Amino acid sequence: MGLINHVFNADSLKKLYVSNLGIGHTRYSTSGISELQNCQPFVVETLHGKIAVAHNGELTNAVRLRRKLMRHGVGLSTSSDSELITQLLAFTPPLENDDTADWVARIKNLMNETPTSYSLLIMHKDIIYAVRDPYGNRPLCIGRLIPVGDMNGKGKDNSETEGWVVSSESCSFLSIGAEYYREVLPGEIVKISRYDVQTLDVVPRPEGDPSAFCIFEYVYFARPDSIFEGQMVYSVRRRCGQQLAIEAPVEADLVSTVPESATPAALGYAQKCGLPYVEVLCKNRYVGRTFIQPNMRLRQLGVAKKFGVLSDNFKGKRVVIIDDSIVRGNTISPIIKLLRESGAKEVSSFLVCTVQI
Amino acid sequence: MGLINHVFNADSLKKLYVSNLGIGHTRYSTSGISELQNCQPFVVETLHGKIAVAHNGELTNAVRLRRKLMRHGVGLSTSSDSELITQLLAFTPPLENDDTADWVARIKNLMNETPTSYSLLIMHKDIIYAVRDPYGNRPLCIGRLIPVGDMNGKGKDNSETEGWVVSSESCSFLSIGAEYYREVLPGEIVKISRYDVQTLDVVPRPEGDPSAFCIFEYVYFARPDSIFEGQMVYSVRRRCGQQLAIEAPVEADLVSTVPESATPAALGYAQKCGLPYVEVLCKNRYVGRTFIQPNMRLRQLGVAKKFGVLSDNFKGKRVVIIDDSIVRGNTISPIIKLLRESGAKEVSSFLVCTVQI
Amino acid sequence: MGLINHVFNADSLKKLYVSNLGIGHTRYSTSGISELQNCQPFVVETLHGKIAVAHNGELTNAVRLRRKLMRHGVGLSTSSDSELITQLLAFTPPLENDDTADWVARIKNLMNETPTSYSLLIMHKDIIYAVRDPYGNRPLCIGRLIPVGDMNGKGKDNSETEGWVVSSESCSFLSIGAEYYREVLPGEIVKISRYDVQTLDVVPRPEGDPSAFCIFEYVYFARPDSIFEGQMVYSVRRRCGQQLAIEAPVEADLVSTVPESATPAALGYAQKCGLPYVEVLCKNRYVGRTFIQPNMRLRQLGVAKKFGVLSDNFKGKRVVIIDDSIVRGNTISPIIKLLRESGAKEVSSFLVCTVQI
Amino acid sequence: MGLINHVFNADSLKKLYVSNLGIGHTRYSTSGISELQNCQPFVVETLHGKIAVAHNGELTNAVRLRRKLMRHGVGLSTSSDSELITQLLAFTPPLENDDTADWVARIKNLMNETPTSYSLLIMHKDIIYAVRDPYGNRPLCIGRLIPVGDMNGKGKDNSETEGWVVSSESCSFLSIGAEYYREVLPGEIVKISRYDVQTLDVVPRPEGDPSAFCIFEYVYFARPDSIFEGQMVYSVRRRCGQQLAIEAPVEADLVSTVPESATPAALGYAQKCGLPYVEVLCKNRYVGRTFIQPNMRLRQLGVAKKFGVLSDNFKGKRVVIIDDSIVRGNTISPIIKLLRESGAKEVSSFLVCTVQI
Repeated sequence: MGLINHVFNADSLKKLYVSNLGIGHTRYSTSGISELQNCQPFVVETLHGKIAVAHNGELTNAVRLRRKLMRHGVGLSTSSDSELITQLLAFTPPLENDDTADWVARIKNLMNETPTSYSLLIMHKDIIYAVRDPYGNRPLCIGRLIPVGDMNGKGKDNSETEGWVVSSESCSFLSIGAEYYREVLPGEIVKISRYDVQTLDVVPRPEGDPSAFCIFEYVYFARPDSIFEGQMVYSVRRRCGQQLAIEAPVEADLVSTVPESATPAALGYAQKCGLPYVEVLCKNRYVGRTFIQPNMRLRQLGVAKKFGVLSDNFKGKRVVIIDDSIVRGNTISPIIKLLRESGAKEVSSFLVCTVQI
Repeated sequence: MGLINHVFNADSLKKLYVSNLGIGHTRYSTSGISELQNCQPFVVETLHGKIAVAHNGELTNAVRLRRKLMRHGVGLSTSSDSELITQLLAFTPPLENDDTADWVARIKNLMNETPTSYSLLIMHKDIIYAVRDPYGNRPLCIGRLIPVGDMNGKGKDNSETEGWVVSSESCSFLSIGAEYYREVLPGEIVKISRYDVQTLDVVPRPEGDPSAFCIFEYVYFARPDSIFEGQMVYSVRRRCGQQLAIEAPVEADLVSTVPESATPAALGYAQKCGLPYVEVLCKNRYVGRTFIQPNMRLRQLGVAKKFGVLSDNFKGKRVVIIDDSIVRGNTISPIIKLLRESGAKEVSSFLVCTVQI
Repeated sequence: MGLINHVFNADSLKKLYVSNLGIGHTRYSTSGISELQNCQPFVVETLHGKIAVAHNGELTNAVRLRRKLMRHGVGLSTSSDSELITQLLAFTPPLENDDTADWVARIKNLMNETPTSYSLLIMHKDIIYAVRDPYGNRPLCIGRLIPVGDMNGKGKDNSETEGWVVSSESCSFLSIGAEYYREVLPGEIVKISRYDVQTLDVVPRPEGDPSAFCIFEYVYFARPDSIFEGQMVYSVRRRCGQQLAIEAPVEADLVSTVPESATPAALGYAQKCGLPYVEVLCKNRYVGRTFIQPNMRLRQLGVAKKFGVLSDNFKGKRVVIIDDSIVRGNTISPIIKLLRESGAKEVSSFLVCTVQI
Repeated sequence: MGLINHVFNADSLKKLYVSNLGIGHTRYSTSGISELQNCQPFVVETLHGKIAVAHNGELTNAVRLRRKLMRHGVGLSTSSDSELITQLLAFTPPLENDDTADWVARIKNLMNETPTSYSLLIMHKDIIYAVRDPYGNRPLCIGRLIPVGDMNGKGKDNSETEGWVVSSESCSFLSIGAEYYREVLPGEIVKISRYDVQTLDVVPRPEGDPSAFCIFEYVYFARPDSIFEGQMVYSVRRRCGQQLAIEAPVEADLVSTVPESATPAALGYAQKCGLPYVEVLCKNRYVGRTFIQPNMRLRQLGVAKKFGVLSDNFKGKRVVIIDDSIVRGNTISPIIKLLRESGAKEVSSFLVCTVQI
């Protein structure tokens, strides 16, 4: 439990160096339940040995699956979808005797039981299976570890590979000296061994069904330098801002952003309109937990806890402010009020509903 | 993880006061694997709701059961026998529709799958089932919580009961204001609700099989004021010492003990022989962990780390020293050497192999 | 020890609500020694009661002062300048009998012993003294807590004050519902009681000496919405960028920033030159500790661990990149290399040496 | 903070192996304030280098000394007597130029300022000074580390010494392979270097004043195998029981003890009277903290939480029960009540007020 930097220190990392294969998992708990029990990877022993499973996603038919497993007599020890997936993989009756074929059959069986949403890493002995659900709801991509000697640009044509890495977001590759190789396709089952990446199967969607990549990855989940479907997230966000300028131009003095995920869209909007891009808010990096709300004072503060106001930059001006999306709708209206109270003459706000363009 | 006094402080206890029902578990890890995952009670969700299971014992057919469960498709997440029991209870197909009957059937089914050894507490909704395996290998007994007003001896005839408690050892009852009520019998399934204790069934052993109560409970596991099979542990230990004096008298100056579990036997031996009981060793309470053995010096110290020597008490004397049992046999011989080096003229040692008498 | 959000949770905050007066301290350990002992405030008992001292700054004559105190017989238990200040305050012989006058005399005596650098909060009984050294090296400012009912803009003319707050940076006031009141002046000793803020004295610098406000507060320490010397930090940074454009214009396709402290300067430069402002790097927020450098691979990565590259934004372009300052000089050159390797046609870099303009 | 076994694990011990000199301290907080700040040894930097001080005792003139130090301008950061001693050692003006003489002069000066009670270890560079106050209130003794090869009785005549150890109680020596060498005398200043133990001075008490060794060391502080003033603690306790039997014989059936510090006296009493020694109580080892007293039930339990009752051993009998001392007087009376309620026919109790005999 805790931030990666606290959990993985020099001592705990040293213990991992005995191996050349591993999976890990970090998550921002969306459901608010952040318990040790739900920590991934889930490890269970099965008839064919131990498997470890890391899962990104939420099962659409989790309630039905829980019941099905329990009816079969499996006691479930967590509230996690990821335990469901792990038990489903353990549970599926072995179809063939060959061990490799076996796990592919089990994975395909899992896909049959629950079509979406999951990106998975399954470790079994010396193999890691990387799997994306047939709808491709959550991202998953493969990177190639570049040999150390090649990293500084010398010998870039060197085609040797030191190893393979898999991640939800390609931005992580640069930080460890790997380069983007390719996406795992929707429905694809990839087998990764020490030096080899091999597609075992691509399970199709039901005919007529479109893919369903999560739009919020483009909107604010992903880091802007990540690549999804062949395009950099930043570029998608900026094009959205440009399109917004075409569809909804405003007479104003300046364009600004609710930092930080809306910044590319704001720059795109400003550029397309020919208006100056100006910063009006700065983020308060130290506002984290919501539990520190012990009295009415802090509850009333609301958005002022999250942002500082750069009032010199917009006093007496007409401001266009771009936010990345509208989820609960409780952020943009206090921001507009804050800007007006701090001296803005007029505030027009836009919520960029990113669409794939 | 940790000592009860560290884990359950005022804050963590306060959270438990919302309820009038609960089970807990503390263990001295015999297998050396002391992991958070193996902490009890095991809680799983089943088709009929959550169950929590606390288990004392070791399954004799654990390997076969693990395989059986895994063959059925249950992934096991720990190395613990207790998880096996919990999954077996979840797994057993429901036999009847009535909910109560259901759990009794499941518990009997469990007894059928694994005859020994376990004492169990199973919590389900507002019921706790207390179960001992048919061989009665591990102890389990029931206590009655005395209403507060009655505790100081006034109104002892008051037959009201404030609640029920179940424990491996009866000695714990006194400490919380409860009194010993009775043992759970070998094979017995007891249902405990708020005000009621009810025997649901007593599953018999295979014909001809004797009961198999763990002899080491008498020898050194149990606290001497605990009651098993109607007799106080202390009395059993003392009678063993007396019997030893009959079977193996020694000409000596004094009788002593390896503190502390052998003390009742030593006192019994001394009394029967008419020899004075004298203390020759005192325990070093602060020797705990074995990991602090960083150099040859400490490794060589051996038994001297564990005991202080009261040499004034036995210099020039012939000493009979009683220990409770012989397990690895690496304690008594260094003790004899230590006593001789510290001035004993002669040392006779006895290992009391307690038997039920 | 740890982040504020971890240390001050609901429980630990509750314990503080018994009082209406307090001082706290948080620091980024510049000297690398981050020990519990050095945590502030320092609390010592003196002849006139307990004092608690929080200190921002570094004493220029610390070595001499340590020796002086030790020669006088004071044993020092930490390596911290702040302990020196606390002991100097305890040590100074009382000059008058009146208690208030006494502490002012002690503070003035301290200023005499060590002219710079320190901003101090000294708590004694129900008084807090806010003190800035005569050179004004570190910032310190006072905020006014606005009554809750007035916070949402209604009744802004209400002149009531609910309390006073003091901070290194004014940006913190907005987050707790306070408003900027004024700076503590260089050499000023301010006495703060529950409802009153009173200047007790302003100790002058030696004649001819200029003030010496730390330039790095403007450059990168401070949050851009903080106010120093009557001007918003953001505005100072932007004006520096504009001035740079006047003094050193470049023929290029776009202007960018090393995020984030250089962004105002980059926007100022871009605007003055009439070049587009474009983002080329994004920060890797999860790179923190440097201890995770276990192998050659990660050591070689260098700057690539810290930044993601938005290559789509600058491929084939001539880039002007603005950084806030040059300290060790080991950041900008790998960034230039990274940009060139990622497709920039030309990279010109500027390090804004902010000066007060 | 915490038990030695938790704080000093394999990792933390490894860091200490770089050195051949060290002092440590463990304490049972008598004043109830158990804070990290009060942990010893106290380390301060003085004009002549760092000193570390470990202290056992309580200063009789602490209040006056605190005031004296504070009047001199030393701010005190803890409520601990040990900080007073450390600051007094730092504070005393150096009397001579020679460094060794200097510390002896400082220690003698300290003895002048505060006559009792303290046993001290003072570490400075490669020297440890062992000091006992002139009244000899707290114990301190020296042990000789026996070379490893000699520990098993071979070559006992080997007069080589591997090092020296100093401890409050001699019982600790056996556990680390050292043997008792001698006590530090009241008022003695012993200088210990790597291979040498040297008396620097023995400061006398004021004429006519008797020594004042703490009687409770004999009564219950010390482990029974420790040696004070040339006699084993166990023997003193037993002789007290024998003397009690002479002065106050009782007609009874058995003699017992409140475990465990009264056991030697009970055995002595029983032997002298010719009555059998029988155990009637057993200690509940798991009762530690008093904070777990959340409701009336547990508060009413009182002594029953601390002891189990071995009722089989004394039902219908006349019991003499020996306790070690009477401090608050709130233990023996509930014990008598507990024994009577559990079936004792008569209970006579004695509190052994140990005196030096």
